[in-house]
Amino acid sequence: MDAAFDKELADNYGIKFHDESLLDEAFTQASFVNEHPGHHLRFYERIEFLGDAVYELVVSEYIFKRYPELPQGQLTRLRAAMVNEQSFSSFARECHFDRYIRLGHGEEKANARNRDSLLCDIFESFIGAVYLDQGMQPVIRFCEKVIFPKLDAGWFDEFFDHKTELQEKAQVNGPVAIEYHLLDENGPENHRRFKISVTIDGKEYGVGTGHSKKNAEQGAAKQALKYFK
Amino acid sequence: MDAAFDKELADNYGIKFHDESLLDEAFTQASFVNEHPGHHLRFYERIEFLGDAVYELVVSEYIFKRYPELPQGQLTRLRAAMVNEQSFSSFARECHFDRYIRLGHGEEKANARNRDSLLCDIFESFIGAVYLDQGMQPVIRFCEKVIFPKLDAGWFDEFFDHKTELQEKAQVNGPVAIEYHLLDENGPENHRRFKISVTIDGKEYGVGTGHSKKNAEQGAAKQALKYFK
Repeated sequence: MDAAFDKELADNYGIKFHDESLLDEAFTQASFVNEHPGHHLRFYERIEFLGDAVYELVVSEYIFKRYPELPQGQLTRLRAAMVNEQSFSSFARECHFDRYIRLGHGEEKANARNRDSLLCDIFESFIGAVYLDQGMQPVIRFCEKVIFPKLDAGWFDEFFDHKTELQEKAQVNGPVAIEYHLLDENGPENHRRFKISVTIDGKEYGVGTGHSKKNAEQGAAKQALKYFK
Repeated sequence: MDAAFDKELADNYGIKFHDESLLDEAFTQASFVNEHPGHHLRFYERIEFLGDAVYELVVSEYIFKRYPELPQGQLTRLRAAMVNEQSFSSFARECHFDRYIRLGHGEEKANARNRDSLLCDIFESFIGAVYLDQGMQPVIRFCEKVIFPKLDAGWFDEFFDHKTELQEKAQVNGPVAIEYHLLDENGPENHRRFKISVTIDGKEYGVGTGHSKKNAEQGAAKQALKYFK
């Protein structure tokens, strides 16, 4: 593999491969193998298969432990947000994986290097290669550096359903009345702004604003949830 | 948890929980929790979420290493066969998990204890509980005892596509002609039996029989694959 890439992996993520051929395999597309017959090269797909399962467990365990009260349905939604093509391809670009993929000429010309679906595959095969070479801990450290901070940065916020969570949390000890009230709306027609409060048994617990009622309600519910942590 | 169950787990699988409350949680349905308000019981769904990812990785790694030449598509199909409701519910019954689920009265009356979908959930939550309590190794040992031998016993054979595998293996060093030939068919109309051979570049590599041409071809391909291991 490329020495510049080895240096990036070591400097940025503390990862140094024992068996470099795994890294080669993880970054090699079938089109490259086809252009080098007789070299017995392997391409990334099998390692990607494994990496997919490794990453899913790392993410599942992290959010399971980080959100000890989050119900299964929301854990599943959050995991889906963290395990999807769009997320993967931006993680891969952030780590410069696009620079080091080995492609055949046709794929290179077709700009496959910047194709989300390929970057997504390569992200998973990278995870698989690290796991095969060094086990689970370096994968977890990589995710702690690259992926998990994005939770705090709000990358996956839209997948949290704060209203559902509030309903579940507030009713742990029996039914209560949760109501949303439109307090204000203003601004031009195409850029309206809503302000909405949420009350539980008549007492106000949170206020949220947004360009849609739905977003304002989610904001209010998010604020109210602070009382139930 | 039930002492008989503890004994079964210890005797049959060498599993002894450090934190029994995890096992309780894994075997408790929401209906039971609802009938015991104020006990702060937890039900299995969150642990099931984690167990699902744990089991998927254990199976993925096992088949990845066991079949080093199987292409990604077939690994994915095989994993899907090993990670599905029908498989899970029969594993759960084999381990007597159905006996130890904690249900509410309504669900008990509705015979939920024997419902495949519930047994499937409980199988995953059991895996999740073992993992949380003791890490990956005991889960692997459990699978080595309960799940993996079923591969050899042919449980998932129908998901192997031997013809595709043969095509890929035989053409590693360039294109070859793979042809299937009907050698014989006999038996009554509703119970016909076919005998089919497969040739590669004109030389016979395998013969298979079956009650459909498709099955006979798969059998022939399976036999031919022995030359490519």
